[in-house]
Amino acid sequence: MINVAVIGYGYWGPNLVRNFLSAGCHVKTVVDMNENRLFALKKAYPFIESSMDIDSTLADTQIDAVAIALPVTLHYPIVKKALLAGKHVVVEKPMTKSAATSRELIDIALREKKVLMCDHTFLYTGAVRKISQLIKDEQLGSIEYFDSVRINLGLFQSDINVIWDLAPHDISILNYIMEKSPTSIVATGLSHTGNDMEDIAYLTMLYDDNFIAHASVSWVSPVKIRKVLIGGTKNMVVYDDIEPTEKIKIYDSGYRIKSDEDQKKMRIDYRTGDIFIPKIDTTEALSGMVTDFMQAIDKGRKPVSDAELSLSVVTILEAAEKSIKNHGKEVKL
Amino acid sequence: MINVAVIGYGYWGPNLVRNFLSAGCHVKTVVDMNENRLFALKKAYPFIESSMDIDSTLADTQIDAVAIALPVTLHYPIVKKALLAGKHVVVEKPMTKSAATSRELIDIALREKKVLMCDHTFLYTGAVRKISQLIKDEQLGSIEYFDSVRINLGLFQSDINVIWDLAPHDISILNYIMEKSPTSIVATGLSHTGNDMEDIAYLTMLYDDNFIAHASVSWVSPVKIRKVLIGGTKNMVVYDDIEPTEKIKIYDSGYRIKSDEDQKKMRIDYRTGDIFIPKIDTTEALSGMVTDFMQAIDKGRKPVSDAELSLSVVTILEAAEKSIKNHGKEVKL
Amino acid sequence: MINVAVIGYGYWGPNLVRNFLSAGCHVKTVVDMNENRLFALKKAYPFIESSMDIDSTLADTQIDAVAIALPVTLHYPIVKKALLAGKHVVVEKPMTKSAATSRELIDIALREKKVLMCDHTFLYTGAVRKISQLIKDEQLGSIEYFDSVRINLGLFQSDINVIWDLAPHDISILNYIMEKSPTSIVATGLSHTGNDMEDIAYLTMLYDDNFIAHASVSWVSPVKIRKVLIGGTKNMVVYDDIEPTEKIKIYDSGYRIKSDEDQKKMRIDYRTGDIFIPKIDTTEALSGMVTDFMQAIDKGRKPVSDAELSLSVVTILEAAEKSIKNHGKEVKL
Amino acid sequence: MINVAVIGYGYWGPNLVRNFLSAGCHVKTVVDMNENRLFALKKAYPFIESSMDIDSTLADTQIDAVAIALPVTLHYPIVKKALLAGKHVVVEKPMTKSAATSRELIDIALREKKVLMCDHTFLYTGAVRKISQLIKDEQLGSIEYFDSVRINLGLFQSDINVIWDLAPHDISILNYIMEKSPTSIVATGLSHTGNDMEDIAYLTMLYDDNFIAHASVSWVSPVKIRKVLIGGTKNMVVYDDIEPTEKIKIYDSGYRIKSDEDQKKMRIDYRTGDIFIPKIDTTEALSGMVTDFMQAIDKGRKPVSDAELSLSVVTILEAAEKSIKNHGKEVKL
Repeated sequence: MINVAVIGYGYWGPNLVRNFLSAGCHVKTVVDMNENRLFALKKAYPFIESSMDIDSTLADTQIDAVAIALPVTLHYPIVKKALLAGKHVVVEKPMTKSAATSRELIDIALREKKVLMCDHTFLYTGAVRKISQLIKDEQLGSIEYFDSVRINLGLFQSDINVIWDLAPHDISILNYIMEKSPTSIVATGLSHTGNDMEDIAYLTMLYDDNFIAHASVSWVSPVKIRKVLIGGTKNMVVYDDIEPTEKIKIYDSGYRIKSDEDQKKMRIDYRTGDIFIPKIDTTEALSGMVTDFMQAIDKGRKPVSDAELSLSVVTILEAAEKSIKNHGKEVKL
Repeated sequence: MINVAVIGYGYWGPNLVRNFLSAGCHVKTVVDMNENRLFALKKAYPFIESSMDIDSTLADTQIDAVAIALPVTLHYPIVKKALLAGKHVVVEKPMTKSAATSRELIDIALREKKVLMCDHTFLYTGAVRKISQLIKDEQLGSIEYFDSVRINLGLFQSDINVIWDLAPHDISILNYIMEKSPTSIVATGLSHTGNDMEDIAYLTMLYDDNFIAHASVSWVSPVKIRKVLIGGTKNMVVYDDIEPTEKIKIYDSGYRIKSDEDQKKMRIDYRTGDIFIPKIDTTEALSGMVTDFMQAIDKGRKPVSDAELSLSVVTILEAAEKSIKNHGKEVKL
Repeated sequence: MINVAVIGYGYWGPNLVRNFLSAGCHVKTVVDMNENRLFALKKAYPFIESSMDIDSTLADTQIDAVAIALPVTLHYPIVKKALLAGKHVVVEKPMTKSAATSRELIDIALREKKVLMCDHTFLYTGAVRKISQLIKDEQLGSIEYFDSVRINLGLFQSDINVIWDLAPHDISILNYIMEKSPTSIVATGLSHTGNDMEDIAYLTMLYDDNFIAHASVSWVSPVKIRKVLIGGTKNMVVYDDIEPTEKIKIYDSGYRIKSDEDQKKMRIDYRTGDIFIPKIDTTEALSGMVTDFMQAIDKGRKPVSDAELSLSVVTILEAAEKSIKNHGKEVKL
Repeated sequence: MINVAVIGYGYWGPNLVRNFLSAGCHVKTVVDMNENRLFALKKAYPFIESSMDIDSTLADTQIDAVAIALPVTLHYPIVKKALLAGKHVVVEKPMTKSAATSRELIDIALREKKVLMCDHTFLYTGAVRKISQLIKDEQLGSIEYFDSVRINLGLFQSDINVIWDLAPHDISILNYIMEKSPTSIVATGLSHTGNDMEDIAYLTMLYDDNFIAHASVSWVSPVKIRKVLIGGTKNMVVYDDIEPTEKIKIYDSGYRIKSDEDQKKMRIDYRTGDIFIPKIDTTEALSGMVTDFMQAIDKGRKPVSDAELSLSVVTILEAAEKSIKNHGKEVKL
């Protein structure tokens, strides 16, 4: 059995603890600086040790792996410490605040022969796995665009802007299903709080072929929207993560509007073919992530959410931030 | 009674004829080059003259005003001819393909003392008028963003790209309700048809204050979306034009998420205050446009959709196209 | 060419005129007692005769067929006159206010060798034809129930209650797709206006086999709902007539919940299989009805909405009304 | 601190345990006959005693109160035993399978001076409390109807039909907000499983005034619907329990359709006034129930979901079943 420590018990930490327990791990220690949170931990799980000291937890030789759910700016130093202390590490997204530090952590993990992965939870959802499969099975044809809207009223964070908070979801999904990287980024955005932290932003990812990707992210929308459109020459997918049971809808795109007469019909009808809503697996995504992490440790298997993918996400985020600060100037990768 | 000719009887022309008739105008002549369309006209309105000759129609001294519903590239030459022939003119959106030609037409109209307006129909909808009123009445507070998505399966046009086709709606609404102009444009997009005509595009409009506007437009979306979010410091508006009866929803934005605890609540709840859905006027927008045109002719009143606003729309479209061709390079206005 | 007269030019009459014209009929005369309506007719169709005299219109030997869109209480006397005057007749639903009078009209039509049909427009919609086809093709398995909700804010009529107004739609669809009749009716309802005219009512149709049908109808609902569920042992259909483009959804019903564990899953997931949304024909239903009427006249073909089906609808409506007045007492057919 | 035992650890039991713990009770013992469930209990709450013996648990003098989540047919004997053993009791809905046994339990509780209540959880939702308040504050005017649809794919139970399973929710809400009882019941339904247990049913509740109530319940619907319409002379409420954030919508009903012209407008528009969506409390309902039970024990306060209300629910259910077996025969109360 693998012994795990969870570092950080704020919003996401309790989900990690619950899923590590369900996966049959021994959660030995949970670290947090907040007494109330540790009190809540004791009430729910009297058998787990609580601690306020990261260093001594990392020094505990009984602990094989740590899950880190801390503010983004702490990812780099704590992950580094944990890897150097000989722990396998899973860290919340995004991996770090810069491509350089992410690269350094990957190199350390390789050298130390430890698993390093970033918790891009969406890659473990039934919906994303279904879309990935549809693409692999060439059900969509040649993919022409990826268009994501991820907006809601959100927590104004003080250390990262909305791009670093929300766009890792879109970009990790995009990179995972498309298996290719953009050649340049154009991004715009605005901060309404006077601290230069954008609360609304728009990212375009440009490629060297007939494909384009875009993400709208916002902390200031009155409605919650989580909608991704993926258009292929054969079929198009609408992935609406708010929908409880119809997350993935597949539309025939073989027919395109070519005449006035077509258009007149479309004004009444809006669509052109059948729609198919596949049943998708509803297993909790985080449980898949935890299992994947365990198997990466046990069997040396490359995880779905592997560190190179996480680095590519950080690379794009960094470019996007640079582009925003320069009014949409194209940043080549 | 005003005598009107309608030039172009394709998709929009029949709507113009019907509304001019309802408004009590005499529709004397309809011009089109397509025999089937003229046959359909004769069947529906045996009392209207049909013609295939624009010049002789413009030479008809009994005709006071013309409505032009032709392909965009014909707007400039035909509007110019009509104005010089002494006709009042309403032309479909966008006014022309360049700011220079729009400017020229406005100057001619001034010189000839004729009404020139562009049919930005959305400005006459109950929804847009309601939003405009809410802003004027300071119900929304200071406006922080305007975010529009206008996508569907659409007719791939051969003379204009998706920006010139769809974005005039968003930009005319934006300029009308905000009563200010952007200082620069950043736009990206892609053509999948090999003819350099973008079928998907993203426009950011940057301003010299705490406001940002964005529009996503697409002809290649499997679903039809017509959604505009307008966020103010007091209230936010969601304007969903697909909704048959609840087009405008007003959300309290006084409360912003400030703590972890708030965020936890939001994950269950998504929203923070009451929602109000005002009853809005459902009169056909085009009938409002026609009446406005008539009154501009009769009483010299400046129309809601006035030519200067239409010019500002064209200016932005032109800048957006230039930005797209330069991979998102900021184009200052 | 068939010469037609339309009697009654209120809400539905103009739709009849438009569709008869589109079908290539000659609409010779329109009769109404209201001058404003006749004025509107003249404006739209200057070439159609208007009249305020039913008798002289029926005496016009040039007229082959009449379409009757009058209040329900006038259906019996006017249809009878028209048939006896040698006209083919299509009358708005329901055919008459009693099974006895409907029976009499059918007998007269047979004797006079004239077409008599009732305009159950829904039978000509793409949606209902699709459902009927699915049943014929045994795609749904053995049908277990039909459950319809048809409610909205409606016109409080003074000569008929909500059952006679709305339920003809549900019952005509039910009888058409199921091709069998109920053995008894249980109905309840209430009038809030003190005139004994129910504005809300519930009908159960009982059969001699493993099938049940129910309809909720209301003029006092704040929301408009038009939803029919049809459950079969293989597949279930949700027919939502409000949906602009996804009117018919087909759900796998092979899997039923058998265990606690199943139920736990259902609480998260709500459904058990794939969903299929077929593209359906969006041709205007009334145009199908008019064509069917024409072909019944020309070729002696039995129309889809034939008089026997209309009689069975009236029989059920009459039983339902009787049951309501007796507090749900079962009325055998 | 109150010591609690939870009897039955199937679907609902774990929710009871969690909420009793959160409310600060000591959950001493959980009883179930299923080893797997007790194993799950031990894993989640190592500090709670598990037991397979109801009698010895009821004999435990340290236990003050028991929560019973067993099959309905066991409610009467086990609640009776528990009351006679001197325990306060909360039992899952419905209280028992007959009015006579419910009456007997209430009498025993009175005699033993113990709290007896039934867990009609919905009465503790923010939505139902909001509706109740709206009615008390006379915001809706005189209430004219209550119309509920509660359908989904459900577990076919072997000891109770769909009425006893689902309708307790509707009837408890109805009785709670209306504070009056029906005078008679008309119900219809059908069993498709050959065991005389209806899986689909329709209940009409008739009153001696201008009010009517109806509930549709089904285990065989492909879609999950939880929608209640409550119509008053001033305002109407739509309560959609599926909606994550807009559960309650309030519609102006002051305006009724009176003319053809009104009706024509309604066909375009569907509604007549503003809509208001109040923010409602999202606290977990079961936590409110547990607190209410605790306060009934501690302070002798009558609980919201009191035993007399639960008895009235059982009375209606019993009448409904009788009516169904007699093809909708009216059963007077």
